[in-house]
Amino acid sequence: MPSATSVRRKTSKATASKRRAKSRAPVVALPKKMIYFFGAGLTEGRAELKSLLGGKGANLAAMTTIGLPVPPGFTITTELCAVYKLNGRRLPEGVIKEIRKYVRTLERASGKRLGDRRNPLLVSVRSGARDSMPGMMDTILNLGLNDETVDALKTNTKNGRFAWDCYRRFVQMYGDVVMGVQKRHENEHDPFEEVMDSLKQQVGLTEDTLLTEDHLRELVRRFKELVFRRTQRSFPTDPIEQLCGAVGAVFDSWQNERARIYRAKYRIPEEWGTAVNVQAMVYGNMGPDSGTGVAFTRDPATGENRFYGEYLANAQGEDVVAGVRTPKSVTEMANDPYLAASFHQLEKVRHKLEKNFGDVQDFEFTIERKKLYMLQTRNGKRTALAYVRIAHEMVTEGLMKPEHAIRSADPEAMNQLLQPVFDRTDYQRAKSEGKVLTTGLPAGPGAACGEIAFTASRAEQVSKAGKRVVLCRIETSPEDLRGMIAADGILTTRGGVSSHAALVARQMGKVCVAGAGALVIDYHEGTLSCGSHVLREGDFICLNGTTGEVLAGSIATTDSELKQVLVSKTLAPEESEVFAHFDFVMKLSDKYRRMGVRTNADAPDQVRNAISFGASGVGLCRTEHMFFQGDRIDAVREMILAEDDEGRDRALAKLVPYQRDDFEGIFRALNGLPACIRLLDPPLHEFLPHDLAAQEELAQKLGVPVERISRRVRELHEFNPMLGFRGCRLGVVYSAISAMQARAIFEAAAAVQSVGIPVNPEVMIPLVGFKRELDLQVEVVRRVAAEVMASTGQRFPYMVGTMIEIPRGALTANEIAETAEFFSFGTNDLTQTALGMSRDDSGSFLPRYIELEVIKADPFASIDVAGVGQLVSIACERGRATRPDLKLGICGEHGGDPASIEFFEKCGLSYVSCSPFRVPVARLAAARAAIIQGTSPKLGKRVTPTRATRAKRGRTGRGAGR
Amino acid sequence: MPSATSVRRKTSKATASKRRAKSRAPVVALPKKMIYFFGAGLTEGRAELKSLLGGKGANLAAMTTIGLPVPPGFTITTELCAVYKLNGRRLPEGVIKEIRKYVRTLERASGKRLGDRRNPLLVSVRSGARDSMPGMMDTILNLGLNDETVDALKTNTKNGRFAWDCYRRFVQMYGDVVMGVQKRHENEHDPFEEVMDSLKQQVGLTEDTLLTEDHLRELVRRFKELVFRRTQRSFPTDPIEQLCGAVGAVFDSWQNERARIYRAKYRIPEEWGTAVNVQAMVYGNMGPDSGTGVAFTRDPATGENRFYGEYLANAQGEDVVAGVRTPKSVTEMANDPYLAASFHQLEKVRHKLEKNFGDVQDFEFTIERKKLYMLQTRNGKRTALAYVRIAHEMVTEGLMKPEHAIRSADPEAMNQLLQPVFDRTDYQRAKSEGKVLTTGLPAGPGAACGEIAFTASRAEQVSKAGKRVVLCRIETSPEDLRGMIAADGILTTRGGVSSHAALVARQMGKVCVAGAGALVIDYHEGTLSCGSHVLREGDFICLNGTTGEVLAGSIATTDSELKQVLVSKTLAPEESEVFAHFDFVMKLSDKYRRMGVRTNADAPDQVRNAISFGASGVGLCRTEHMFFQGDRIDAVREMILAEDDEGRDRALAKLVPYQRDDFEGIFRALNGLPACIRLLDPPLHEFLPHDLAAQEELAQKLGVPVERISRRVRELHEFNPMLGFRGCRLGVVYSAISAMQARAIFEAAAAVQSVGIPVNPEVMIPLVGFKRELDLQVEVVRRVAAEVMASTGQRFPYMVGTMIEIPRGALTANEIAETAEFFSFGTNDLTQTALGMSRDDSGSFLPRYIELEVIKADPFASIDVAGVGQLVSIACERGRATRPDLKLGICGEHGGDPASIEFFEKCGLSYVSCSPFRVPVARLAAARAAIIQGTSPKLGKRVTPTRATRAKRGRTGRGAGR
Repeated sequence: MPSATSVRRKTSKATASKRRAKSRAPVVALPKKMIYFFGAGLTEGRAELKSLLGGKGANLAAMTTIGLPVPPGFTITTELCAVYKLNGRRLPEGVIKEIRKYVRTLERASGKRLGDRRNPLLVSVRSGARDSMPGMMDTILNLGLNDETVDALKTNTKNGRFAWDCYRRFVQMYGDVVMGVQKRHENEHDPFEEVMDSLKQQVGLTEDTLLTEDHLRELVRRFKELVFRRTQRSFPTDPIEQLCGAVGAVFDSWQNERARIYRAKYRIPEEWGTAVNVQAMVYGNMGPDSGTGVAFTRDPATGENRFYGEYLANAQGEDVVAGVRTPKSVTEMANDPYLAASFHQLEKVRHKLEKNFGDVQDFEFTIERKKLYMLQTRNGKRTALAYVRIAHEMVTEGLMKPEHAIRSADPEAMNQLLQPVFDRTDYQRAKSEGKVLTTGLPAGPGAACGEIAFTASRAEQVSKAGKRVVLCRIETSPEDLRGMIAADGILTTRGGVSSHAALVARQMGKVCVAGAGALVIDYHEGTLSCGSHVLREGDFICLNGTTGEVLAGSIATTDSELKQVLVSKTLAPEESEVFAHFDFVMKLSDKYRRMGVRTNADAPDQVRNAISFGASGVGLCRTEHMFFQGDRIDAVREMILAEDDEGRDRALAKLVPYQRDDFEGIFRALNGLPACIRLLDPPLHEFLPHDLAAQEELAQKLGVPVERISRRVRELHEFNPMLGFRGCRLGVVYSAISAMQARAIFEAAAAVQSVGIPVNPEVMIPLVGFKRELDLQVEVVRRVAAEVMASTGQRFPYMVGTMIEIPRGALTANEIAETAEFFSFGTNDLTQTALGMSRDDSGSFLPRYIELEVIKADPFASIDVAGVGQLVSIACERGRATRPDLKLGICGEHGGDPASIEFFEKCGLSYVSCSPFRVPVARLAAARAAIIQGTSPKLGKRVTPTRATRAKRGRTGRGAGR
Repeated sequence: MPSATSVRRKTSKATASKRRAKSRAPVVALPKKMIYFFGAGLTEGRAELKSLLGGKGANLAAMTTIGLPVPPGFTITTELCAVYKLNGRRLPEGVIKEIRKYVRTLERASGKRLGDRRNPLLVSVRSGARDSMPGMMDTILNLGLNDETVDALKTNTKNGRFAWDCYRRFVQMYGDVVMGVQKRHENEHDPFEEVMDSLKQQVGLTEDTLLTEDHLRELVRRFKELVFRRTQRSFPTDPIEQLCGAVGAVFDSWQNERARIYRAKYRIPEEWGTAVNVQAMVYGNMGPDSGTGVAFTRDPATGENRFYGEYLANAQGEDVVAGVRTPKSVTEMANDPYLAASFHQLEKVRHKLEKNFGDVQDFEFTIERKKLYMLQTRNGKRTALAYVRIAHEMVTEGLMKPEHAIRSADPEAMNQLLQPVFDRTDYQRAKSEGKVLTTGLPAGPGAACGEIAFTASRAEQVSKAGKRVVLCRIETSPEDLRGMIAADGILTTRGGVSSHAALVARQMGKVCVAGAGALVIDYHEGTLSCGSHVLREGDFICLNGTTGEVLAGSIATTDSELKQVLVSKTLAPEESEVFAHFDFVMKLSDKYRRMGVRTNADAPDQVRNAISFGASGVGLCRTEHMFFQGDRIDAVREMILAEDDEGRDRALAKLVPYQRDDFEGIFRALNGLPACIRLLDPPLHEFLPHDLAAQEELAQKLGVPVERISRRVRELHEFNPMLGFRGCRLGVVYSAISAMQARAIFEAAAAVQSVGIPVNPEVMIPLVGFKRELDLQVEVVRRVAAEVMASTGQRFPYMVGTMIEIPRGALTANEIAETAEFFSFGTNDLTQTALGMSRDDSGSFLPRYIELEVIKADPFASIDVAGVGQLVSIACERGRATRPDLKLGICGEHGGDPASIEFFEKCGLSYVSCSPFRVPVARLAAARAAIIQGTSPKLGKRVTPTRATRAKRGRTGRGAGR
């Protein structure tokens, strides 16, 4: 009987000694219930226990409960993953005892016994995290085989070769995964493959499939020898020892590099851990009346309501995923005389799954001698296109709850719908010129075009150089993940629509063509060839992920269907199905979200775009962008070069009409929606030319000596412009600049209002750190407003507030709110100052920081909750304490980032503001955040006490900030 | 009888209309007791009520109580200053009623009556704030005069001219101060003076003193006419109306510009307000047996125990202050037949004052017809020299309480004692010859004189030639360090009092004038010019770092006496009286302070200096300064230019012996005192040459192509180096750098300890914002420590901690303290990041910010308590919550600033660290803060509950942090 120590997994000397150091592990408290059984009549788990049982375990239980045929088994909970780690990476005695108990239950349910010489129970051991992490962790199949049970398997299946092949596979898999017999250097071959190759050479065979039962028996012997040579340990024969080793190995695999990278990318907390599923084996390779497959209840690429998937007759599940044989479409099964009955059974299963799980399911099945078994089901990953269509149709059909449609969304993916597609003409040209190399499987829709890279590292390199890249692989493995992240498109020559490449590509929204078997990739030569047509690394290639076409060369891309409807308006909404689906999801989001979504826009056309994307106002209008248009930059420069107040005033006077026109355009486009306009922010030297030629040109234009310009440029030079003479500091020192801008804003407001269009300007003072800065600027703004009202006779509404973008501003928000009517968080600058990290300079260390897990994600893309977020929370709280009806928004880049939006929902902000194209992402993310946090106005009753208190303080519901 | 409205002060139309808007002032609650009487037998106030009665009022009461002859009067409390403002700048009815009541008491005490036709009471109305603000606020004399009482005055004094001159002065003063009849433009003459001049012209006189009674009578008429013309109001004849107007005017003057600027400079809170003293007039101009004077009980310049002061016979107090007539020394009064008796009376008063007030007094007196009156007394302002002598002598004599000696100190002034001084005669000569070029910011006090050098290398060269040199730069950078070391003085045309130049200068005790913007340095031409005055390299220039003056030419300087004792050791301690006084004060401080005082020093000689100044350890050793010495910069550059880890390791290995020697020297100098050593902090590009010539030279030296150097310089260029790749980011990415530094530190520690000298190193990781940054670095440091202990067999104590210098570090201090054994606040960078304000660039707006009262003081000189201070408090609190015995210190420039030290005492820091020459300032300031806050270990019983709690959390008393 194995002791806790003996089942400890050993991999290499180094890690073994490391563990030895930890061998005096603390006594770890065990949870009360550690294992859940599933099997007809005995099921302990249920779908809701996902965080405890993992997705796979919970759904196996759920499928059993609704009467689907699931091989019996049990799930070891995710809680034990942490226990295992805490216990020095060993299973505590108490857990082993519990496993034994459940093995006995499983033996009773299956009628077989582990290690039995006549009717042995064989099991699979698989990982199963809360969220599916395909291919990231380890799996062991055929566990329970040893020199005795293999004979029983042979007798029972009447197939000696099959039995010994199972045994061979098990020893190989277990030796690798559990006992750590792996290649030790990059350029080594897999040690098991080497042993197999040497045997094949010895017996003069080239194909694995031609190996006889005797060959395989010999191979098992040699494999065991290899294991002993490498580990000084015999291959375990006791099935319980095998099982405990496998369970530990699955828990270990939660910490492997692939899994860590995956978790980092999808922000899955390490604490979640994985569960382990132990399940009776079934075999799809028992003859022509057996088979195995993977299917989706609807098309995960397009969302179409059709049975979608593939199967292989007389094969094991791993064969489908590995892409060794090319599988058939699942619908063809209807015509297979051996499997037609199973197909009809599957059709029923398909509907039952959707009805019960309320979403599209991605499931695995095996048919063992005409008997169908369900091995797994989960919500199917899908493209954005499929997502909107499925949400629209399943919600309408009553199959999916609207809340689920929002909650299960990946808001970031909305962006895919706006991604470019191939320019039709250019695409036709390329086709007519015979550039189509082949057509593979359309595994990730869209258009991608880029340089060929054959390795993940090369893909990363090309991408870092700012070029587009297509990763071309025979097949992909989790090791290629970084390359896939870097690539615009992924091409494989093997594997189907549910291969690793296809799955990951769809999840990331990458274009993917899989299983393009006509292409030959030669890593050694560095070529991709199609007949005589040879392409090399660096050559261009195009993928049509919607049709599966692969084209040589480069093709221009153009607007997507949705973009044609919303932006270029070359397509009417009613002509577009995509728009109908998209619109449904967006309107659904609007019902659930609490926060408003505004946009950052500086020009009327941007504003119009944003409104068609659903923006409810402008959250940030950067006035300085306007300074660069047309001739006005001359007046700006004249203002900067002025040697006295009079000169400055003269130049500023020239700018008023320009700026007034800008604001008129924006107010008209907004038609009464709020416009938050930020006064001049960047340091003045940004407006002056820095090279001598341009300075001379300007000198001539303005009729001043060039020395004066170059002197002023030198004077204005700053060592740290980010922390320099900018923001309200300009307005405080040169109040005439603020007065000019306020005049332009208010004159525009008066003019637009006078023709019956409502206006709603919010004047925003940037970079305030001291209340008095704001006081001084507000005085100017209010004085000008009064003057303009007096001179035009128009009384227009307006607000004055500030950006909170430096730590002192956040920390003294209580004082600042005495004057400010609103805050808008400038989280870009707040991140730079709170972290002491320049956005422009952090490239030199930030990637390494993310690698070293100093920081989870780029803090300029997703808000650093613990630091920057803390300042935002503090400012919200203190600002509201002073002024309960303080309007709070955010206009930094984070306003369009779903993870950040979740945080802003927690802070109770009134609105987020983001770039026009991210407005749909933000609408969906805001709705999702409100549902998850129970703050959605549609979920009135779920408001928590804290929320209620905040509401009492004067914050109003959704739309307040719009 | 005047109503509340009619006594409201009117100045100009603009302010009048402003006030009208506020005329519906709220009803203001009045304090219970508003006025305190003083006068024999009736005195209500006492010295302790200074904050309520102002310094003047409290001391008038105190003098009356101890039997000194004080004209009777009453003090309206400072509380009413706020009441007056709140009430729309009017006296509430209740206050006027109370004033009437006290006027009646004063009438009884003086035997005169206000407005009486025979024996009228005349009064002075003066301001009196808690701290004396000489000449900042308004005063009215001779109040109570009108057309009727003037005649009585004439009769009683038998001097018509005197009476009418009093009346004339009163109308002029009242018309100006209370009724606002002032010049309306800069280039106007004073309107009263104009009227007077015109009369003098008319009657053909040039001297005021020659005007007759009739002339003065006519002048009063014309003055009243002027007042009516300007204000449309008659000059008030009712003495109570006059009095209420004057009281309001004094309260108003608390808000005048002079007073505001003064308060800003001396950091007096606006809330304090001023009291108003109404006192019966006495006259020093009643003939030769009358007089008036101002005196100190000891010499305020030298501290010598001698009667010091001056008087004028037959004159009013204002004549002494105005300096119209040259007064005589007070000791000469003994020889004045009319006043000798009064002198002997004054001698007694002098001793009585010192005995009763426990400090040197600065007092005013008037002798009216042989009768002595005391008009005011206050603690005398004094030079640093006088301060130490007086403290030493008066404490020893038992006249002054030791606590008072510390509490009343101006710690900042200690610096004066160490600065080289200009030879007095020579300096006056240079000034009179017009050699002053401009006045910059006094950034490092003292006197320096030398040849101009524009580059560090030139400065070194000149210095090596044995000549004195002033390094003149537009601004300085670490590259200039050698030049700064070589120079006697440093002049920059940009940057403020905490610019790099100023910082380093103070640390080195160098004279520095910074930001002398009127000077133009042209490196190319090799000139420093001020207008048409052009100086070249080799010309002489002088800096007065105490005043900021820059002078052309040469002026002789000399070491201060104290410096001769402590630094150059050219004078034995027992030979110096100054040292004896200084030493007494320092030792007294040490008894009272709780915080330790360390020093920022990078070299053994700096450490030795600091120890002779009383430092108890090194709070900040900047290792990078060492990188510039000798040849080692070559190895540093080689390290930076290395293209791979091996090249980097090779270069780093060369640095170990250098750094080890550095640390050995420091450990030896410290002899067991703690040394907090910061690992590499500045961005790497600071170590590379930026001009092509130097790059070519380096290329030749290292044998690499110059392109590689210039490429690396470009690669390392940063937009905002302050927020860039620096601090622990370097160590996290290139851990070999940290390992090298740790090795040098620990090998030095082992070597020094092995010869029997104790060591106490504290390794400090800079710029930590994330706990994991610290974890990664601490791992390296601890590993190297273990290696060195193993290889040397020496077990030495050491600590590892971090600098808290970015907001995120402060906000997540609870996490960081899990790893850090100590925090040292880097308040320079914390100020830059928390305020989003670059130290080097803020010169363009900070002066204006201080003018506009956006910020009270330069935040780089004195900590911004509300913002930066808040982060310090948060970090202290959260750090201690995690680790109760966390050692807390501060090593930013603020560590030597008395105001900041007060704040750090509040935070309960263990120690402050400052530049060696500021150690005495910090010792005194720390003692003063502890006394003021009741946290001094000498004042055990006064510990407040909060303090007690903090102590319980594990903080130990004074000396813990040393």
